Amino acid sequence: MDRIPILKMGDRLLVSIQVDMHDRLAMALQDDLTNQVVKHHARGVLVDISALEMVDSFIGRMLGTMAAMTRALGAETVVVGMRPAVAITLVELGLSLGEVRTALDTEGGMKVLDSLIRDTDPRVGRDRHDL
Amino acid sequence: MDRIPILKMGDRLLVSIQVDMHDRLAMALQDDLTNQVVKHHARGVLVDISALEMVDSFIGRMLGTMAAMTRALGAETVVVGMRPAVAITLVELGLSLGEVRTALDTEGGMKVLDSLIRDTDPRVGRDRHDL
Repeated sequence: MDRIPILKMGDRLLVSIQVDMHDRLAMALQDDLTNQVVKHHARGVLVDISALEMVDSFIGRMLGTMAAMTRALGAETVVVGMRPAVAITLVELGLSLGEVRTALDTEGGMKVLDSLIRDTDPRVGRDRHDL
Repeated sequence: MDRIPILKMGDRLLVSIQVDMHDRLAMALQDDLTNQVVKHHARGVLVDISALEMVDSFIGRMLGTMAAMTRALGAETVVVGMRPAVAITLVELGLSLGEVRTALDTEGGMKVLDSLIRDTDPRVGRDRHDL
């Protein structure tokens, strides 16, 4: 597979990662995702990793980078569906997803996005509290 | 990968097929999907095939079987995201998806599900017009 599909649902985008990520696929996903966020004026991105049996430092970093990129474009990212074994390994290896938000499943992730999106005003960006 | 993830969104289930299907994976998906439909009382299933570069008779039959199975359990299935090249090949090969409903993308599929679900009454099943 050359590209991971990005599904549009209203002002949300949904990405289901099911295959082993390698450099080029990760770059293509970052490219596609940022382009889709801009094209559709997306406010939230849901990344499902329930198919992944392990999350190594490469994938962890990729998720963090994607979240930072979409945030710069005005969209919040929530990672959902992490398997318990993956969470255990992540901590045991001393890895973390950094500032990436997580939720148990898709519906939980949508709720997190609801509250994140409500807290930001698209017209003035994330700094409206400082005005 | 041993299983294709099934994402729950309200009374809909979402399946994104991204990998080559083989017998065992297809059986596992049918198993999981029917179980999830029952468990969550799902009314609609969206199957995204935008990652597939080809749909052969095996996949076509699998989609038809899944749609028939979920319908028997009270949930409608819509296949979305077919690539233009896939549609061309399907017709050229004389294959069809049978009675499987299709839509251009996820949002179109959701609208089709909306109308299909509105037309059926969960309390008396699909035969209410015959009452």
